[in-house]
Amino acid sequence: MYGFDEVALVPSTLTVDPRDVDTTWKLDCLEFKIPVIAAALDAAVNPRVAAEMTRLGGFAVLNLDGIQTRYEDAEGALAEIAGAPSEGIIEFIQKMYTAPVREDLIAKRVREIKDAGGFAAVSAIPANSPRFCAIAAGAGADVFVVNSTVTSLKYYSTRTETVDLTLFVKESPIPVILGNCVGYQACLDLMSTGCAGVLVGVGPGAICTSRRVLGIGVPQVTAIADCAAARDEYFARTGHHCAVIADGGMRSGGDISKAIASGADAVMLGSSIAAASEAPAPGFSWGMATSSADLPRGTRIQTDIAGTLKEILLGPAHRDDGTMNLVGALRLSMASVGALTIPGMQQAELAVAPTLATEGKTLQRAQHVGQGR
Amino acid sequence: MYGFDEVALVPSTLTVDPRDVDTTWKLDCLEFKIPVIAAALDAAVNPRVAAEMTRLGGFAVLNLDGIQTRYEDAEGALAEIAGAPSEGIIEFIQKMYTAPVREDLIAKRVREIKDAGGFAAVSAIPANSPRFCAIAAGAGADVFVVNSTVTSLKYYSTRTETVDLTLFVKESPIPVILGNCVGYQACLDLMSTGCAGVLVGVGPGAICTSRRVLGIGVPQVTAIADCAAARDEYFARTGHHCAVIADGGMRSGGDISKAIASGADAVMLGSSIAAASEAPAPGFSWGMATSSADLPRGTRIQTDIAGTLKEILLGPAHRDDGTMNLVGALRLSMASVGALTIPGMQQAELAVAPTLATEGKTLQRAQHVGQGR
Amino acid sequence: MYGFDEVALVPSTLTVDPRDVDTTWKLDCLEFKIPVIAAALDAAVNPRVAAEMTRLGGFAVLNLDGIQTRYEDAEGALAEIAGAPSEGIIEFIQKMYTAPVREDLIAKRVREIKDAGGFAAVSAIPANSPRFCAIAAGAGADVFVVNSTVTSLKYYSTRTETVDLTLFVKESPIPVILGNCVGYQACLDLMSTGCAGVLVGVGPGAICTSRRVLGIGVPQVTAIADCAAARDEYFARTGHHCAVIADGGMRSGGDISKAIASGADAVMLGSSIAAASEAPAPGFSWGMATSSADLPRGTRIQTDIAGTLKEILLGPAHRDDGTMNLVGALRLSMASVGALTIPGMQQAELAVAPTLATEGKTLQRAQHVGQGR
Amino acid sequence: MYGFDEVALVPSTLTVDPRDVDTTWKLDCLEFKIPVIAAALDAAVNPRVAAEMTRLGGFAVLNLDGIQTRYEDAEGALAEIAGAPSEGIIEFIQKMYTAPVREDLIAKRVREIKDAGGFAAVSAIPANSPRFCAIAAGAGADVFVVNSTVTSLKYYSTRTETVDLTLFVKESPIPVILGNCVGYQACLDLMSTGCAGVLVGVGPGAICTSRRVLGIGVPQVTAIADCAAARDEYFARTGHHCAVIADGGMRSGGDISKAIASGADAVMLGSSIAAASEAPAPGFSWGMATSSADLPRGTRIQTDIAGTLKEILLGPAHRDDGTMNLVGALRLSMASVGALTIPGMQQAELAVAPTLATEGKTLQRAQHVGQGR
Repeated sequence: MYGFDEVALVPSTLTVDPRDVDTTWKLDCLEFKIPVIAAALDAAVNPRVAAEMTRLGGFAVLNLDGIQTRYEDAEGALAEIAGAPSEGIIEFIQKMYTAPVREDLIAKRVREIKDAGGFAAVSAIPANSPRFCAIAAGAGADVFVVNSTVTSLKYYSTRTETVDLTLFVKESPIPVILGNCVGYQACLDLMSTGCAGVLVGVGPGAICTSRRVLGIGVPQVTAIADCAAARDEYFARTGHHCAVIADGGMRSGGDISKAIASGADAVMLGSSIAAASEAPAPGFSWGMATSSADLPRGTRIQTDIAGTLKEILLGPAHRDDGTMNLVGALRLSMASVGALTIPGMQQAELAVAPTLATEGKTLQRAQHVGQGR
Repeated sequence: MYGFDEVALVPSTLTVDPRDVDTTWKLDCLEFKIPVIAAALDAAVNPRVAAEMTRLGGFAVLNLDGIQTRYEDAEGALAEIAGAPSEGIIEFIQKMYTAPVREDLIAKRVREIKDAGGFAAVSAIPANSPRFCAIAAGAGADVFVVNSTVTSLKYYSTRTETVDLTLFVKESPIPVILGNCVGYQACLDLMSTGCAGVLVGVGPGAICTSRRVLGIGVPQVTAIADCAAARDEYFARTGHHCAVIADGGMRSGGDISKAIASGADAVMLGSSIAAASEAPAPGFSWGMATSSADLPRGTRIQTDIAGTLKEILLGPAHRDDGTMNLVGALRLSMASVGALTIPGMQQAELAVAPTLATEGKTLQRAQHVGQGR
Repeated sequence: MYGFDEVALVPSTLTVDPRDVDTTWKLDCLEFKIPVIAAALDAAVNPRVAAEMTRLGGFAVLNLDGIQTRYEDAEGALAEIAGAPSEGIIEFIQKMYTAPVREDLIAKRVREIKDAGGFAAVSAIPANSPRFCAIAAGAGADVFVVNSTVTSLKYYSTRTETVDLTLFVKESPIPVILGNCVGYQACLDLMSTGCAGVLVGVGPGAICTSRRVLGIGVPQVTAIADCAAARDEYFARTGHHCAVIADGGMRSGGDISKAIASGADAVMLGSSIAAASEAPAPGFSWGMATSSADLPRGTRIQTDIAGTLKEILLGPAHRDDGTMNLVGALRLSMASVGALTIPGMQQAELAVAPTLATEGKTLQRAQHVGQGR
Repeated sequence: MYGFDEVALVPSTLTVDPRDVDTTWKLDCLEFKIPVIAAALDAAVNPRVAAEMTRLGGFAVLNLDGIQTRYEDAEGALAEIAGAPSEGIIEFIQKMYTAPVREDLIAKRVREIKDAGGFAAVSAIPANSPRFCAIAAGAGADVFVVNSTVTSLKYYSTRTETVDLTLFVKESPIPVILGNCVGYQACLDLMSTGCAGVLVGVGPGAICTSRRVLGIGVPQVTAIADCAAARDEYFARTGHHCAVIADGGMRSGGDISKAIASGADAVMLGSSIAAASEAPAPGFSWGMATSSADLPRGTRIQTDIAGTLKEILLGPAHRDDGTMNLVGALRLSMASVGALTIPGMQQAELAVAPTLATEGKTLQRAQHVGQGR
């Protein structure tokens, strides 16, 4: 199985003018200019970020199980987490997330996004989805995301509250995205519900927390390629295009380019967005699983503020590590391998070419090749 | 050959409710709630730890060749080792283990475990096993473990004191576990003695001391899979189930999950147990081979005290590195890959997916996926 | 795909006397004593370095899109970049490169090289090449290099200013080198223009900036071998020999030896040349893409001054890390594997033998083998 | 191709009593108790070390091209090198080796070894071998070693002084060892001269200097296996056993065990011997190629003094890193995989099992398995 670090894009016999590259993609009947979605991390998305993501051509997902719906004064609660000492931070975060989710705040946050001119995508864990979706859709939400570490159509439980995903998708008044999944059949199962998109990625990072704590993880290149094959099969069978959204494990424009070349229609970014100066808790990030009461995964990390959301996504970049002007990098990458569109980029050649952590000395070597045509 | 770091669990098309997961396993006619055994390390197991392990649903093995049976005041001797300066520590430990093993202390330690309500499993090297087993069983021991770096049924020596393992197992009044072994045929040979279980693991860690000093080592995923195949073959031939116990190389809930998915019935943990606040020498650990008079392998290391034994095994966790709530992690891992039981987990899919030590930057990336269903 | 770190040269059944080794190679009708070209980096090549490279048996390429043609007082501008503080250096370099290229300076730099007795090779990006080539050739330039990250014969653009490379090569009064490319067919396409040589290398370093920012990269051993196969095919079809020049990713004499054994006729070095005491900005290096206005790749790095250009290329070496006496190392390497000429070296055996970054402890182990015959 | 770090020994179905293990091996008609030779490094071998190596059951090779034969007061010259400042050390060593070799000192050193009761093996580069061998044999030398980075039977030179190795071996009054070589055919060629042994190893370490400077290198497991196959073929053809001596890349008892399991009859150690308290320049080591006038490879390194030569080879060990009691480790390793003799160990199973440099955390994990039987 392959991850981003083990493959590289290979130029073809054609190059194209970057100014002619088109990064548009579709989710159901909706069209977006850039294939980037901000992930439902409390440290990445609040109503303000959601509106800005919309203006930049993508969209953001607001977490309905998080701080925004547990606290009237969400900004204050986020500042508290950002300001808490590192010592004991996990227990502090665990405690902050014991406050109950308030239904009135769900509607309120959706309206805040809409009032700011944003596209309102919101998410919840499966058990909360039927209830939260009704409220959010009523308040004007545009898309609902059902989200857990591993989501499958088939679910065994001796309890009775189990959610029927097929029924949920069918009855939802707004398009639904389901996730996360990784395998061909599991993905095809989710697509069979008629959902608008699937999130692909389970323990994607080579040394990510799910890999360490649970032992579960599928490298993203393989996961995306498998789910893209399921999408193509599902389209062949039904004529319905279900978007494959790569979720997790991407750090740079190069990783995003590889995700799309692996077959993704769009990518979902968390930490890259949390590094924006407009982020809810600038300079800090933590995951949804950090707040788990009995098995926290991931802690609060201090992040470098890379620039504005616009600079991070559209440039210009003032650093050379691939973390700024992500869409500009994708466009130049597409131009260099001769891809004019996202579907064209999905056909680009990827080869196995490990990124060796040898000696850090090769970093500056390849720079004397020119800036493009 | 594959080790834990080179594979990852892959979700299937089914997920289950973690509350429905059952981690029970069997050793001969005995049944245990959790598939974790504390290893016969002087720094991990004393009678008190053995009793607590029993209460938590597993059991511990007390080393009859170690400090507990060489010193009436074992706690004092352990404190001396913990308190000795780092300079010259190996020679100090070598000296501490030159005190002779006292037979009266063997019986005493077994009774202490039983009096505290514990399940009494004890171990010795092959040469000492016949004598020590008689004494221990007489004092009420429940299980005897015969233990050396590599134990095989066939053994060549020009000396006369060689132990006949088949005879030993047959005559032992209590169930016997034999180890360590790694290959299919070597494991099948040991099982043919009629033993209740085998310990699997020879130089399992990629950079472990046996690998470096002796050049011997088989990565655990391959070793466990081979021995599990031997177990299944032995069961098919005889109808007798011999437990495969993965011994060594596991650091996290993820590693334990992979060990069982590789085919183990249970796992044996050393350093994880030595990191408990109840451990015999809290904050320190050393191996059985550290005391070798002419070829010491492994030194005394300072360990971080992770929490109580209960927190380490059953949670709740207050850290996110996978070293606490190990059984909780196993349960969530099993739920995520759709396994309701240990035999179900033994069928879970493992794929090759290296844990690259690239840049330590991917650690926090995968956290924005949800907390389960 | 393989890079330099993943392969090693294998001795054959013949060894030869290093004094009998001949490193001559041909570019069109031109013959050079050493297979080393200084890359068109502003930090590596000025007219003085170009003349010295010629005296040493190779040649250098002067960048016509860089500092030398934007500033009358190029040395002053280079000193400014070298002297600027690290904080904000990328923005500073971006600003320095906004000064327009002056056509009079193109002619002036070419004449300076010729006046100093040098072989005048100059380079530009495709869009500038027709105009700059005319000026440079008029001033006496010997070779023109058309250079971009990925150059292909087929290029799609809705704009009208697109350069027809076939026409350009045909009409150029001086031999042309095209680059960069990596694949067999893309290379064959470029060769079909009738050019004198191709530059091979796109994101060659395992952790190079193009790999990170764009996700594009082909390890050099594979890239060179593919392009060498294209060269041989092109020669078989046309009788014309087009030189394959390995560009990027080489740090030592060993890497250069492997590049030629992979099939290269010559190598192009940037950082190794920038480390010479005669370099334009001694002690500093930066790439052509560092100055990119919206997507800078690579920053200014501080380099160690290894010695004079002559010591770096022809020795004697006073350090043991393979960065000095590069041609001497190549000669000894050729002698050790029994190759008397560059074409002979192109047939040497390469085997997969990873350079593991284990523990840095094996570095000094292999030194007790002798100094040659 | 595989090196020591990529393989591990695998236990079989038999274990043997370490006290019954026999490590005897043969070089021509000579028999040695331990399969360890001290390499011809000036920092490893002087007459005193040669005598001690003999007493311990192996032997040492004295370098006739080094300090011992260039300086009457060799100890003084060695002390000068050891005492020189690190700054400029390579140039200092280059200068020290410009003193001419004195023929009277060759004879003198041989007699010193013999007078001290040692087995006198001496070495020179091919060009010096005929002359030096005559002098050394006349003074009583027992074995002559012809040594260069890569030695092949076929050698091309336009000069006339070329040595005919077949003639040299035939006319030598004492047994000859030739090296270094790595391939099957190159090794078979050398064996066809009738030599007593071959040295196997060219750039063996993964990050060794020959690999970096020259790009040449064959990992030792593959090299030894190929040459062992040549030895077996040569024996089948001629009935003559030519010893395969693994030279370079071994750091621990585990590496030595793997070298023999790969097919070696004996191993040649440099740095391990230079780490003895009796070494010529205790605490320092440098290679034969460090003194190269135009292309030095390897510098002077500071080494840790591990103990006496006896402790390093035969124990007891007081450290746990595998660098002491090397022969004891080999014996325990042989016992653990069921090998009673060196030829038996040559049949032991090796499997591919990479030593990952993951996190340094697995080091202490495997220690709770016992001390043997």
